[in-house]
Amino acid sequence: MKLATLDDGTRDGQLAVVSRDLKTAHLADAIAPTLRAALDDWAFIAPQLDNLYRLLNEGKAEGIARRPFDFDPARCLAPLPRAARHVQGAAYLNHLELERRAAGAAGAELPPAWRDEALLRERAADGFLGPLQDIVLAREEWGVDFGPGLAIVSGDLAPGATADAAHGQIRLLLLCNDITLRNLLNESSNGWDWMAAQPATAFAPVAVTPDELGESWRGGKADLPLRVSSNGNGVGQLEAGDDMAFTFPQLLAQLCSTRGISAGTIVGSGVVSNRAGKRRTPGYASIAEQRWHEIVEGEEARTPFMRVGDTVRIEMLDQAGKSLFGAIEQTFKRPDA
Amino acid sequence: MKLATLDDGTRDGQLAVVSRDLKTAHLADAIAPTLRAALDDWAFIAPQLDNLYRLLNEGKAEGIARRPFDFDPARCLAPLPRAARHVQGAAYLNHLELERRAAGAAGAELPPAWRDEALLRERAADGFLGPLQDIVLAREEWGVDFGPGLAIVSGDLAPGATADAAHGQIRLLLLCNDITLRNLLNESSNGWDWMAAQPATAFAPVAVTPDELGESWRGGKADLPLRVSSNGNGVGQLEAGDDMAFTFPQLLAQLCSTRGISAGTIVGSGVVSNRAGKRRTPGYASIAEQRWHEIVEGEEARTPFMRVGDTVRIEMLDQAGKSLFGAIEQTFKRPDA
Repeated sequence: MKLATLDDGTRDGQLAVVSRDLKTAHLADAIAPTLRAALDDWAFIAPQLDNLYRLLNEGKAEGIARRPFDFDPARCLAPLPRAARHVQGAAYLNHLELERRAAGAAGAELPPAWRDEALLRERAADGFLGPLQDIVLAREEWGVDFGPGLAIVSGDLAPGATADAAHGQIRLLLLCNDITLRNLLNESSNGWDWMAAQPATAFAPVAVTPDELGESWRGGKADLPLRVSSNGNGVGQLEAGDDMAFTFPQLLAQLCSTRGISAGTIVGSGVVSNRAGKRRTPGYASIAEQRWHEIVEGEEARTPFMRVGDTVRIEMLDQAGKSLFGAIEQTFKRPDA
Repeated sequence: MKLATLDDGTRDGQLAVVSRDLKTAHLADAIAPTLRAALDDWAFIAPQLDNLYRLLNEGKAEGIARRPFDFDPARCLAPLPRAARHVQGAAYLNHLELERRAAGAAGAELPPAWRDEALLRERAADGFLGPLQDIVLAREEWGVDFGPGLAIVSGDLAPGATADAAHGQIRLLLLCNDITLRNLLNESSNGWDWMAAQPATAFAPVAVTPDELGESWRGGKADLPLRVSSNGNGVGQLEAGDDMAFTFPQLLAQLCSTRGISAGTIVGSGVVSNRAGKRRTPGYASIAEQRWHEIVEGEEARTPFMRVGDTVRIEMLDQAGKSLFGAIEQTFKRPDA
């Protein structure tokens, strides 16, 4: 099923079920007020939401007090506006390798340990942006970069849970845009730089259950195309299922090494990054990666980071070539604009 | 006022107002169901809670359906069982300096930049432990260490907020125990080690508003004594107001450099650490610190980390020498115990 959260003036918004074609929606308030509440009691709530989803897709969800309405992404908050916890992985090692090559690191090989355990970062679990909310930041010089990735929402997991156990607790998939302020990253800092460099994450309008992906949900990865454009021009055509070195269940199991996970935890893949391989270059999903390519090819980094007024559009297509999550469309603005 | 969250089987628990002497409590369900809900709408809710607190302290809080009851910390969850966000600072630089000296870092001086900006870490915002919940961990060899610190709960703050603005948004103070698995920290890792090494944080039974501290709440620090004991023996008598290089308003302002803060965000001070100075040595608030002392004095680190069955007790005293937050009392147990 597909779920969205509408802006009703509250911090957690109002839960709605959205039709598979993203055309109509129906309030879920008779079932659960918020997605957070639904995740807290998923085994009981999800079947009821799924029933409404089925009726909505069949055009039979006309109630007495409630009726379907046109789905409008402009009314959406992030599907889960405040998570229990938010962790970001770096599952696409090509991104890290390119960074090292551009920095001229000796051999540019990743340390072997980095292939055994994923790089994971604890992130702010709040302040998420809706799909059409602007990127409001004070300074162009911070080096504003987009970074599309997939994320999952987990149910409860006990300490020591295996990847198999974790696979069964993946409740929802999300599409996100992790903004990074590349020029604030500073190797000699005490580590605080990464927090300052990662402001609010934006999410596509709907969260989808893994069964919506059909056979494209394979081994804990989403084997689907990602489309990224900026200022109306396509910049990246990537495959989210390729080159993902750690699956979502693996990331979850790693997180369970010393503690449990509670329902409503978001775990992101990090920015999608494909090796060029035999195919035509897939373009780029983050400006930094394009700049690293330029450096590795012996040039100056010439692609600029986002400028005020620049836009980014991020979308993932399902097996039928339709938008799976709806699109993220954001414009970089200054606070006073 | 003093607030606690009782375990009623839900994830966010049930909000209660607790008398100043920690002897009686009264459910706040007629005002707000949870502390999270109260923080979401603090300007409206806090005066009502404060009125109930006043009646409770005066022995006049007898209602028709509700009446005061004996306050029992054993029924408590963490005051805010799930936060909007959780950040831990390292505001006591003595702790970092000692670590460097023990590691034999050249000169052992902190890099100057570390005195300008605090080391801050994003932490899991969920899974918090109540004051009497055990520390349940699989392995003694992880090097289980306690780490008492203060924390604040913030209201909303806009990006770029100043320390002055942040001071006015400090809603509550908390006393916490940040457990660290010292033997999992590994300098050559990709940074994931810090996440694995910091399982759930525990909190003392009550959250208190800053006005409860009277003149001991000074310049955004709590000028009050901290008592730490292990297995019934006092191990540390520290002063939380001494040697805190960054005040809570400063930590909040630093966090606002590129993004805002939303209501219900917890920011911790990091483990309290005093310089020995002219006074008799204050003992230690974390085992690691005692071990670093031993190394700096030319010995082997001989104080062991926590063993299964070991206990830790953490308490802060108010100006009258009474327990301000109630005590944290935890025992290290194995999952199968």
